Amino acid sequence: MDIIRALKEAGEAPISGEDLGEKLGISRTMVWKYIKALEENGYVIESSPGAGYVLVSPPDKLYPAEISIGLDTSIIGNDIHYFETVDSTNDVAKKMGIRAEEGTIVVAEVQENGRGRKGDPWISPKGGIWLSVILKPSILPAHAPRLTLMAGVAVANAMRQFGVDASIKWPNDVVIGKKKICGILTEMDAEADHIGFVVIGIGINANVPVEELPEELREGSMSLSSIKGERINRAEFVQALLKSLETEYLRFKVDGSTKILEDWISLSNTIGRQVDVITPHKIISGKATGINPDGALIVENDEGVHEVIAGRCIYK
Amino acid sequence: MDIIRALKEAGEAPISGEDLGEKLGISRTMVWKYIKALEENGYVIESSPGAGYVLVSPPDKLYPAEISIGLDTSIIGNDIHYFETVDSTNDVAKKMGIRAEEGTIVVAEVQENGRGRKGDPWISPKGGIWLSVILKPSILPAHAPRLTLMAGVAVANAMRQFGVDASIKWPNDVVIGKKKICGILTEMDAEADHIGFVVIGIGINANVPVEELPEELREGSMSLSSIKGERINRAEFVQALLKSLETEYLRFKVDGSTKILEDWISLSNTIGRQVDVITPHKIISGKATGINPDGALIVENDEGVHEVIAGRCIYK
Repeated sequence: MDIIRALKEAGEAPISGEDLGEKLGISRTMVWKYIKALEENGYVIESSPGAGYVLVSPPDKLYPAEISIGLDTSIIGNDIHYFETVDSTNDVAKKMGIRAEEGTIVVAEVQENGRGRKGDPWISPKGGIWLSVILKPSILPAHAPRLTLMAGVAVANAMRQFGVDASIKWPNDVVIGKKKICGILTEMDAEADHIGFVVIGIGINANVPVEELPEELREGSMSLSSIKGERINRAEFVQALLKSLETEYLRFKVDGSTKILEDWISLSNTIGRQVDVITPHKIISGKATGINPDGALIVENDEGVHEVIAGRCIYK
Repeated sequence: MDIIRALKEAGEAPISGEDLGEKLGISRTMVWKYIKALEENGYVIESSPGAGYVLVSPPDKLYPAEISIGLDTSIIGNDIHYFETVDSTNDVAKKMGIRAEEGTIVVAEVQENGRGRKGDPWISPKGGIWLSVILKPSILPAHAPRLTLMAGVAVANAMRQFGVDASIKWPNDVVIGKKKICGILTEMDAEADHIGFVVIGIGINANVPVEELPEELREGSMSLSSIKGERINRAEFVQALLKSLETEYLRFKVDGSTKILEDWISLSNTIGRQVDVITPHKIISGKATGINPDGALIVENDEGVHEVIAGRCIYK
């Protein structure tokens, strides 16, 4: 990673193998070997004899170096575990959870067995952002839904920084209008009254052309590249996302969830809408008027005011 | 297991190798091999030439066959995973949780790394009962503490059937007076609003002489063998315990936790007592007057009525 950092710092000015070697405390031959390895990993490096090396472009990969060089966080992303292909980043994160430092990230180019809520499949092709964050908050399991709200706010804010008008749809989708662009899956390992760790899985259709998604998902899905009309720099987006997550998480730790709830409500496009909420027991139709601190949707209709803890929400 | 069942059914009447072979659909030579294997596992079998085999005594082991032959349950204990030695039965159960059938049991003779609440060590020598049950209830993570209450009721009732005057000490110890005889550790794998599975770990000082426990635990501990003055039949106790657990669990599924709360209160020796409850933030002193449906202890003092969700309770 140090050699990538040195090349990036040098920018367009060639840096000689000798200088690089001195900087990193290695021989020129080792420098040359590292450069070859980087090239094999997709880094485009110009080398002019006598002058030195210039990093022309990094590969379109979410390599730890691409995420961490320039990352402005203190907890989230200190430890990044990268996989080309993985079953599910949440499953990997759950396996390492107990021993991992808070803020550890698992990221993959492709998930072969990505999961949404209640085990539903989550299609995770190349070009997307599939990552999981391990957190260790001192909260009760009953309050874990607040972290899902927090993640929704962080994702929507990061997208807005990238000029994408993202909203939040209850309970945990980030949407463009009615079309899903990101899903959030919060899982935990907990005792009855004590959380061991939480894994927040965030799946974003980044550079995934909507027309390449399975047919049944196309109508209800959106992607960053489709809405912007161009591919985004995924590594930069992940940096913005991790920063946004950390900002919200530190606020949550210090001030609790009041501000997050306010932000969630102002970012949501569910509140104020006529909805059908499908729960395991019944369908509740009415106007969504708010959420409670544990993320339950408040729905008002002729029969009264309902707090719906879990369910699938359909906009009318 | 079938050969043990056949021997147990025959009781004191010798059963010939030929009859056994016919019953099990195997050759007499195979019967002889099985009998040898059982003897190696500690079964005492009398064999008189011409007459046949008599099972004199099973070994003092919690082998699946010893638990399941005569077990009167329909869910809990259908699948039993046995280990001589294990790190922690809860850890094993958590690893198999997602794929396991509800009611699956993990049991071990010795835990080398037994855990209590919040990762505290739990000493688990030979002679104890160290088991974990996997359940898949359709409840919210916030309601998981109810399963801890349920397990406390089930354990105390099973002990009372064995003539031991067990009570429950909030939040989750089964005690004889002030001395702990059983600890319960409920862990879960959950989404924010949906439980994947719960593992209830139950550790019982069964045939563990109190004087063999580490010195610092002796004063606060009791065991079934020490209170009764004789070793108990652990397999029979486990059968009673699993039956008791299943009775409470089916009641919980059908009627919710009302009856369990009532039973918990009548089995508890915490309610009505002056207590100090140590929480991460403060010590609450007062009279324990009840619990709420989520297992929080209600403590009354001059300052008012407090609901304590989690903490360590000390009797004055």
